[in-house]
Amino acid sequence: MEMKTVLTWHEEMHMSASTDVARVEMDAKPDHGGQGKGQSPKELVLSGLAGCTGMDVIAILKKMRALPATLKIEVEADQTTEHPRVFSRIHLRYIATGADREKLEKAVNLSQNQYCGVSAMLAKTAEITHEIIVD
Amino acid sequence: MEMKTVLTWHEEMHMSASTDVARVEMDAKPDHGGQGKGQSPKELVLSGLAGCTGMDVIAILKKMRALPATLKIEVEADQTTEHPRVFSRIHLRYIATGADREKLEKAVNLSQNQYCGVSAMLAKTAEITHEIIVD
Repeated sequence: MEMKTVLTWHEEMHMSASTDVARVEMDAKPDHGGQGKGQSPKELVLSGLAGCTGMDVIAILKKMRALPATLKIEVEADQTTEHPRVFSRIHLRYIATGADREKLEKAVNLSQNQYCGVSAMLAKTAEITHEIIVD
Repeated sequence: MEMKTVLTWHEEMHMSASTDVARVEMDAKPDHGGQGKGQSPKELVLSGLAGCTGMDVIAILKKMRALPATLKIEVEADQTTEHPRVFSRIHLRYIATGADREKLEKAVNLSQNQYCGVSAMLAKTAEITHEIIVD
């Protein structure tokens, strides 16, 4: 198949997952017996969502010759209380400096509505909303 | 909300996402202009899936007093060709040594059918299959 990762269990809830390019550490949340050795698996999924839409936005703005000076994306999520616990609500806050607001809005909408596969997958269970802040 | 991560764009397609506990690096795949500085966002989601089910399995086997000597999980995925590109097929290969096969099967089934929220989310678009190998 076209994508592969290999998880290795180390000790307690510390695990790592390696692709051909890079390794990432994971651990349970500290209040679930974790030792703080990495993000939790669900945090990693949320980080992947941020990276997916972030790369879309940067790639689109680059083509528009409108790269911002800086870009941050804050992502917050709530989960269902019943098992399996899935994301029920996700809010994305795109925060840019040195940006053309109109072009940034266009890029974010293209990512959220057409390109970002992680958003498309998580939108099957979560209501995803976003806001854009240009300083 | 109950979970939060903050993405920061560094340069080109290199980005990182930080929670209160840990930071993870991301980069585009080398054939998409990446510099190998981290897993791609979708690889990170796949790694999160592996960690989610891996932690379920270890937690369940611990309660059964049947922890294996080692556990690895290989995860492979295919994506759709149309945008937004979502996972269409995911195969999980649980590979354990020093394990009670019957209890491991029970733990994997509990994770895949009841507990793993990442599996439940990705199963909305992908057919997820698994196999278990005990050495």
